[in-house]
Amino acid sequence: MAERYEDSYLYKLRHSAAHLMAQALTELYPGVKLSIGPPIENGFYYDVEPPQTLKEEDLEKIEKKMKELSKLDQRIEKLEAKDRADAKRIILEETTLGHGPENAEYKLQLLDAIPDGEPISFFDQQRTDREGTKHRFIDLCRGPHVETTKEIKHFKLMSLAGAYWRGDVKNKQLTRIYGTAFPSQEELDLHLHNLEEAKRRDHRVLGRELHLFMFSPRVGTGLPLWLPKGAILRDTLTDFMKSEQLRRGYLPVVTPHIANIKLYEKSGHILTFREKMFPFMEDEEKETFILKPMNCPFHIEIYQSQMRSYRDLPVRYAEFGTVYRYEQSGEVAGILRARGFTQDDAHLFVRPDQLLDEFIGVVDLMQAVLKKLGLHNFRLRLGTKDPQSDKYVGHEENWTASTKAIEQACQQMKMDYEISPGDAAFYGPKLDVIIKDALGRDWQMGTVQVDYNLPERFDLEYIAEDGKPHRPIMIHRAPFGSLERMIGLLTEQYAGAFPFWLSPVQVAILPIADRHVDAANELASTLKGYDQPAGAMKLRVEVDDRRETLGKKIRENQLQKVPYMIVLGDRDIENGTVGARSREDGDLGAMPLEEFVRRMKEEMSK
Amino acid sequence: MAERYEDSYLYKLRHSAAHLMAQALTELYPGVKLSIGPPIENGFYYDVEPPQTLKEEDLEKIEKKMKELSKLDQRIEKLEAKDRADAKRIILEETTLGHGPENAEYKLQLLDAIPDGEPISFFDQQRTDREGTKHRFIDLCRGPHVETTKEIKHFKLMSLAGAYWRGDVKNKQLTRIYGTAFPSQEELDLHLHNLEEAKRRDHRVLGRELHLFMFSPRVGTGLPLWLPKGAILRDTLTDFMKSEQLRRGYLPVVTPHIANIKLYEKSGHILTFREKMFPFMEDEEKETFILKPMNCPFHIEIYQSQMRSYRDLPVRYAEFGTVYRYEQSGEVAGILRARGFTQDDAHLFVRPDQLLDEFIGVVDLMQAVLKKLGLHNFRLRLGTKDPQSDKYVGHEENWTASTKAIEQACQQMKMDYEISPGDAAFYGPKLDVIIKDALGRDWQMGTVQVDYNLPERFDLEYIAEDGKPHRPIMIHRAPFGSLERMIGLLTEQYAGAFPFWLSPVQVAILPIADRHVDAANELASTLKGYDQPAGAMKLRVEVDDRRETLGKKIRENQLQKVPYMIVLGDRDIENGTVGARSREDGDLGAMPLEEFVRRMKEEMSK
Repeated sequence: MAERYEDSYLYKLRHSAAHLMAQALTELYPGVKLSIGPPIENGFYYDVEPPQTLKEEDLEKIEKKMKELSKLDQRIEKLEAKDRADAKRIILEETTLGHGPENAEYKLQLLDAIPDGEPISFFDQQRTDREGTKHRFIDLCRGPHVETTKEIKHFKLMSLAGAYWRGDVKNKQLTRIYGTAFPSQEELDLHLHNLEEAKRRDHRVLGRELHLFMFSPRVGTGLPLWLPKGAILRDTLTDFMKSEQLRRGYLPVVTPHIANIKLYEKSGHILTFREKMFPFMEDEEKETFILKPMNCPFHIEIYQSQMRSYRDLPVRYAEFGTVYRYEQSGEVAGILRARGFTQDDAHLFVRPDQLLDEFIGVVDLMQAVLKKLGLHNFRLRLGTKDPQSDKYVGHEENWTASTKAIEQACQQMKMDYEISPGDAAFYGPKLDVIIKDALGRDWQMGTVQVDYNLPERFDLEYIAEDGKPHRPIMIHRAPFGSLERMIGLLTEQYAGAFPFWLSPVQVAILPIADRHVDAANELASTLKGYDQPAGAMKLRVEVDDRRETLGKKIRENQLQKVPYMIVLGDRDIENGTVGARSREDGDLGAMPLEEFVRRMKEEMSK
Repeated sequence: MAERYEDSYLYKLRHSAAHLMAQALTELYPGVKLSIGPPIENGFYYDVEPPQTLKEEDLEKIEKKMKELSKLDQRIEKLEAKDRADAKRIILEETTLGHGPENAEYKLQLLDAIPDGEPISFFDQQRTDREGTKHRFIDLCRGPHVETTKEIKHFKLMSLAGAYWRGDVKNKQLTRIYGTAFPSQEELDLHLHNLEEAKRRDHRVLGRELHLFMFSPRVGTGLPLWLPKGAILRDTLTDFMKSEQLRRGYLPVVTPHIANIKLYEKSGHILTFREKMFPFMEDEEKETFILKPMNCPFHIEIYQSQMRSYRDLPVRYAEFGTVYRYEQSGEVAGILRARGFTQDDAHLFVRPDQLLDEFIGVVDLMQAVLKKLGLHNFRLRLGTKDPQSDKYVGHEENWTASTKAIEQACQQMKMDYEISPGDAAFYGPKLDVIIKDALGRDWQMGTVQVDYNLPERFDLEYIAEDGKPHRPIMIHRAPFGSLERMIGLLTEQYAGAFPFWLSPVQVAILPIADRHVDAANELASTLKGYDQPAGAMKLRVEVDDRRETLGKKIRENQLQKVPYMIVLGDRDIENGTVGARSREDGDLGAMPLEEFVRRMKEEMSK
């Protein structure tokens, strides 16, 4: 199992960098009030109340001061307070640096929040200057930290933001300074480069530039309209998943996007999922419909529509089900967090003795899917019960058995996984796929969840070998997560240069002059293969017959990341050759059509 | 152009049969009050208020009396009233047959409803009995009728129902007697046979028996849940249409199932389509969403998202768009009239000079689709403007041009069409496809509509060759109409025995004993072809490994209308042969696997 970030050197380093920044602030802005300064996913921050407004351009000055302080090789030492009174004394006398008690306002509140009996510690970074004067910077902190400020060499302050004290809008707004730090300059540079890359690859920007999807204020926030190229991407992904699922014995179903409120009362979602539901559709005669936030209850209705025997199980219902969730406008982010999205959803109804095999099957499918998508860098996270909490439903023995089945499945599949206690759903343990993208960012994508709750609520049954009704277990799973999230990830992963099989346009044909347009259309028709027998290669081909210069057309098709461009003029038409240019390999020169077709076949089978 | 039913002999015959039934009623049930008795699609009815409750078993007696009256060879003669007073006198004195004015209650009201100046006529069927007494039956009626009751020989009374006078629930409920009549016994027999057939083919019954779809009260009226076999039918139809559309230059799009109310305010649907919309989703902050009743406004948003030049047109956006319409529960009928259904929708944005070509393209697509579906018996109905009405929007010259374009398109495609004045949409003329099914019933399916209204409302533009903005014309079209309606029709057309390429299960393999199951699965896997290269034939194969007798399994797969059954036992496994039984051709005997595969390939290419 991988080391947790919280236990890593990097985490300590960033924590110490936050302290170093705080020290720099106290020297540059005497009277600054410090509150909290934790490490976070990609760096650290400190929330402070400065005596004057800070601006982006001040960050450089602060960085410079940090560099100075870093070089002084201050030892970072832990200092235990004897008791709460001693701690208060240290805060007032030693951390305020002579600026009086009002300067310690937030630290005193933090001290109050530490429960009785817990040890109270500080971290002290100190030095003696040339004149022999001792300088100290002491901060209330649980640690741990690195050993000396000298270790904090490769850092950068990123940005400023407002943040309410304790996250409460009724409190004062503090200034949050974000920074990041790494053990080496290379890592820092890579991170900064990746941030630039991420901006360039932003799926919202590329989605617009590549004509994948759009939003319209008349349609609404978080409700994407898929343009032809995006719709083709969706279809290609869907067809791929459908054929994988058929091969593995899934059965397709199609269910409505709305249901009577009774369905969600029965499922319990009306209580547990109410705040994510769109406003209800209530008519005068008091029938109420709900726009579906999830597909499971529909699949359960289908399961329940006939008597099931132990020989019928497992039953695997799959649907590309578009669901709607009423996310707050502020939380909506492109297609990564939309209000309407299509899950590659399936529900497996299994006997307890089938749980392990079915889990292995699901993990195997996920692996195959990620491989096909070129997403090789991923890990699994097993969300288990938090032993402290009582929010979970279901019998302890079921939890133990299903958690064990998931672990066994991972082990049999030789897949690494990390355990995340407390990350289970309230109805059962789950396994999430975390993908690391080309920029090293983590994306939580597909999920598999074991569910004992819905079978219970709907009183699901199958007749077992003993002739008596038994309860099946449900597995919820979605290897993509959703089409929207997956397309968002793929767009950023490939910076829009999708793998050949996924590219909305695979070949662009650019006739040099108007007199070459007919030949271009004919070539396109050959490559599209519509009139060839079923099973012939069918490429997605576009003829760019706009009246623009060839140069402009080439540039634009390059920006569109089209994998192959064919520039068609007199010579190639006469010779029956194809002058192709590959996105990856550049100009391929003129080749016979057959050779080009062969190359296309190779591309398709990759 | 085909003769209209209203002008046909059949129509007159049925009208006269209604009169004959009324005459029989007055003789059998003295005092019966007659109201109206028109011919209808498949026969006729008469609404009457009988002195006693009529029961189904009375129909035979009435039929018998009709037969007697028919044989009497009564001449049916028109009788013009001199004026309204004369008409009133005839009603009271001659049609009530001495039963007093209260008997003429409904006829007097009908007389009142005839506008001043219109001629008032009666039809009189009379005879003289053996004793020389003259019998007459006179009924207020515009006609026309056949010449003598002798012509009304081949009829049958079908059923009884309640019907409010003038269709108003506040009025008295009358008894409606349905009957039908034909010029020949053969036609009547065929009709009655077809009615039995229709019951047997009822898509609601077959939908359940063939496991195509289901309904659930917790989900709601008119909201089908598609079971695996139905979902496969949908997918197969969808894939077929998608590839036809791609070939023809349509561009796929995908849009949300909801939109802000602003979208439908802009489109005008909030006014013209309000009563078919589901209750709105209104949230506290006053944002209101509407479940989409149609896709057009979304496609318009996409058209409008970028500048269009005359060279970009036509733009053809296609979407399998699931829409929701709030039909009254009483109007919902299986999947033929559901509250949620998926249109094979597309919107074409065209220049005026492209209208004819695009119309031809659409008609050609429709023809290709119907041919592939084996629906060879269809006709086109051109809905034109009612010159009397002022409900239409748009300039007269546009109406003329587009109506002419549609007629030209039909003529160029050598397709018969009938003109139905007043059947246009308020925004433009339309062309409907009327399919006659195997039982001779008419189904209104696909539609093509020209629209000048929405381009106007949304202020759509393209930059024409003159450099100025011009307005495109929209064409709405849906060759299937909807997946649901088309599957309903196909189910009834084929009585569930779908063409091979559409069959949810194409081949069922029935292992004779448990020891043959592995070989059956292996054979299935070969025929499914998942592991063969892209483009290999992929059949839909099911192994029926239930522990039932072979006889039972064969019967059940026959009931499921599976095109091919393979019974697999020791001999075939040893010999590597396949013992197949075809739905159409019966037992095919044992054949080498290659031969069976060849046969399957032929079936697929049909």
